[in-house]
Amino acid sequence: MGFTRIKADFLKDWVETILVQEGFSQEHANLSADVLLMADLRGIDSHGVARLEGYIRLIRSGQINPKPNMVFTQRKKSMGLLNADSAIGLVSAPLAMLKAIEMGKEVGSGWVGISNSNHFGIAAYHAMLALEHSMIGLAMTNASPLVTPAGGSERMLGTNPLCICIPAAEELPFVLDMATSAAANGKLEIADRLGKSIPRGWALDNSGGETNDPTILKQGGMLLPLGSDSEHGAHKGFGLGAWVDIFSGVLSGANYGPWVPPFVQFLHAQNDQPGLGIGHFVGCWELDGFRDIQAVKKDMDQWIRRFKTTVPASGIERVMIPGEPEYFEHKKRASLGIPIENSLLQHLKLISDQYSIPFNP
Amino acid sequence: MGFTRIKADFLKDWVETILVQEGFSQEHANLSADVLLMADLRGIDSHGVARLEGYIRLIRSGQINPKPNMVFTQRKKSMGLLNADSAIGLVSAPLAMLKAIEMGKEVGSGWVGISNSNHFGIAAYHAMLALEHSMIGLAMTNASPLVTPAGGSERMLGTNPLCICIPAAEELPFVLDMATSAAANGKLEIADRLGKSIPRGWALDNSGGETNDPTILKQGGMLLPLGSDSEHGAHKGFGLGAWVDIFSGVLSGANYGPWVPPFVQFLHAQNDQPGLGIGHFVGCWELDGFRDIQAVKKDMDQWIRRFKTTVPASGIERVMIPGEPEYFEHKKRASLGIPIENSLLQHLKLISDQYSIPFNP
Repeated sequence: MGFTRIKADFLKDWVETILVQEGFSQEHANLSADVLLMADLRGIDSHGVARLEGYIRLIRSGQINPKPNMVFTQRKKSMGLLNADSAIGLVSAPLAMLKAIEMGKEVGSGWVGISNSNHFGIAAYHAMLALEHSMIGLAMTNASPLVTPAGGSERMLGTNPLCICIPAAEELPFVLDMATSAAANGKLEIADRLGKSIPRGWALDNSGGETNDPTILKQGGMLLPLGSDSEHGAHKGFGLGAWVDIFSGVLSGANYGPWVPPFVQFLHAQNDQPGLGIGHFVGCWELDGFRDIQAVKKDMDQWIRRFKTTVPASGIERVMIPGEPEYFEHKKRASLGIPIENSLLQHLKLISDQYSIPFNP
Repeated sequence: MGFTRIKADFLKDWVETILVQEGFSQEHANLSADVLLMADLRGIDSHGVARLEGYIRLIRSGQINPKPNMVFTQRKKSMGLLNADSAIGLVSAPLAMLKAIEMGKEVGSGWVGISNSNHFGIAAYHAMLALEHSMIGLAMTNASPLVTPAGGSERMLGTNPLCICIPAAEELPFVLDMATSAAANGKLEIADRLGKSIPRGWALDNSGGETNDPTILKQGGMLLPLGSDSEHGAHKGFGLGAWVDIFSGVLSGANYGPWVPPFVQFLHAQNDQPGLGIGHFVGCWELDGFRDIQAVKKDMDQWIRRFKTTVPASGIERVMIPGEPEYFEHKKRASLGIPIENSLLQHLKLISDQYSIPFNP
C-alpha cells in the first residue's frame, strides 16, 4: 500500500468546493472541510477525506440537508437544544459548541443537546473549541448500531465516542477522544486492507461466537464494548456507550440505540424511529470554577509532567498523555502533507471527475 | 466461608454510635452510616461496614477530621468549591451534591469540586441524590494510587470510579457506577479469600510482568486500566482514570496521581504533596434542559425496555441495565438482611468490644 503526501490546504479547498456544489453555503462547506481535515491532520484517517464519499451519499439520499435551518432553544441558563434540521454533524456540532461556550461564559458551564443531526466526524474538533477559551470541553455522539451490550449478542449501540479536553499552561492540553468499544470499525478496516486477522475481544460473529475475521461486521457480526468480556469489565464499556447514547439521543429527542440511522453503507435504518436523526451532546466548564485559573493550570502542567515520567513498560519509550500522539501527528502532517493511500487517492480523483474539478495537489 | 444475615438498620445504628464516640456530630455520623450501609445493601461489600475499620484508623491518625469546618465558595452560578477541612468523604460528598443540586435548580446544571477530603465510599450514593429531584447525577473521586497508566509500569492512579445516573419514568433509573480499572481491588481480595488466581489482564507484578496472584498489590504490584492491554484499549481506561483524577484533584486543589493520600493500609503517603487531601467532583444536570421532561422520561423508559430485550449471549438470561443488579440486591438485602461473612462478623464484634457497645443484632 503506497501513499502520496498531499497538503491539507489543498484537500480542504477541494472538499469545500465539492460541498458547495452539493448545495452547502460557503460557510458550512468551509467548516465541514475544516473538521474533516483536522481528522486527517491528527492521524484519524478513518474520519477524514476518506469519509467524504459517505457524506455525499447521504446528501444525495436526502438524509443530510445541505441548507439546514437550525434552531437553537435555550431552556436554562446553562442548557439548550439545537434542532439541526438534518444538517451534517460537521456543522451542527461546532455551532452548538459555540452556544455552549457562550452559556459557560455566563454561568460557568454550558450544555447543548443536538437532535436531528448526522455524523459529526471527530469528537475532538468540537470539544477542543473550548480550549481556545481556556475552558474544558466535552463532546459525544451516538452512531451506527454495531456494538453489542455486555451479555448480549445484538447490534444495539454505536462505537459512541466521547471526548474530554482540559487546558494546561505550558504543556499540551489533555485531549481524550475515545470510542467506547474495544476497537473502532476503522481498526477492522485497516486489518482487512492489510490482510490481517483481528484479535479476540474485538468482535463477535452474527451468532455471538468469537471471531478473528476483520470483515465480520459486513456479515452480521458485531463489535464488543471496551473491556471485551465479562471478566475484563465489558459491562463498563457497555455502560459508557449507553451513557453516550442516552445523552446524545434520549435527552435531545434524536434516535438512540438500534434506531440510530446508520452512516455505514451496509446497514439500513430501522422502522418506527422514536426520534429525529442522530444526536450529539456538547458542552464546557470554565477552568476557574473552583479556584484561580493560574493555580489550576500550574497543577495541570505538573500532572502532565509527572505522568510523562511514569516508569515505562518494557519496550515502551514513555507513557503518552491522551492527545499527545495526535498532536505530534498533526505537527508532522501539517508540514509534510497528509499521506493518502493510493487506493483512496484513485477514489478521490474519481470523485473529482464527477464534479469536473481538477485534482492537482 | 459462612455468613450471618444482619439487618441494615441495626448495622447503621451501630456504625453511627461508633462514629459519635469518635467525635462525629450526630448528623455526620448518621450520614456516614447511611452511605456505608447503602453500599452493603447494594451488594458492594468492599465499600460497606467492612471499611469502617479503615475510617477509624484514619480518624485516629488525624487524616480524617471528625469535626470539620467545611467551607463552600461559589465562584460561578453553576460552579463552586467545597474545602472539606479533612472531613470524611462520606459526609463532604453528599453535602457538596446538595449544593450542586441547588445551583442546578437555578441555572440547569451545578458542579462542585471538593478538596481536602477523604475516601467517599460508593460514588452511586452521591450521584443518586440527584434522582430525587428528577435530575441527572454525576460523581467521581480519585483514590489510592494502585493503577498503572497504559504503557507504564508504576502505580500512578486510583481505581478512580465514576458514577452517572439518569432517571426514567416507570423503569428503574440508569445507574452506572464503575471503576476505571479492569478490576477493582475488592475483586482481588475476594479471589484471595477464595484461594483463586486472578485472570490475565487485571494486574501486573512490581516489575510490570503478567501475574495471576491475587495478593500482588501487597507485593508492589499494580492494577491495569480498563481495556487491560494495548490491543484492547488500555489507553482508553487510562484516559478515563486520568479524567477522573484531574477533575477530582487538579481542578479542586486536592492531591492527584501518585500523591493521593492512600486509604489502603499497605501504601504510604508520598512527600511533597501538591494539594490538600483527596478530591471529588460531583454535579447534576436538569433532565428537561433540552425538552419537555415527560418526553425525555418516556424515551428513557423505551431505551431501557429495548435494551432489556437485546438478544442475549449464549448462557445469559438477559442483558442487565446498569444499576439493575444493585437494585435487585438492595431489595433482597433490605428484606433478608445483609450477609456478613463470619470473619468480618468476628471483626465487627472486636470493634464493638473496643467501644464497649453490645453487638446484638
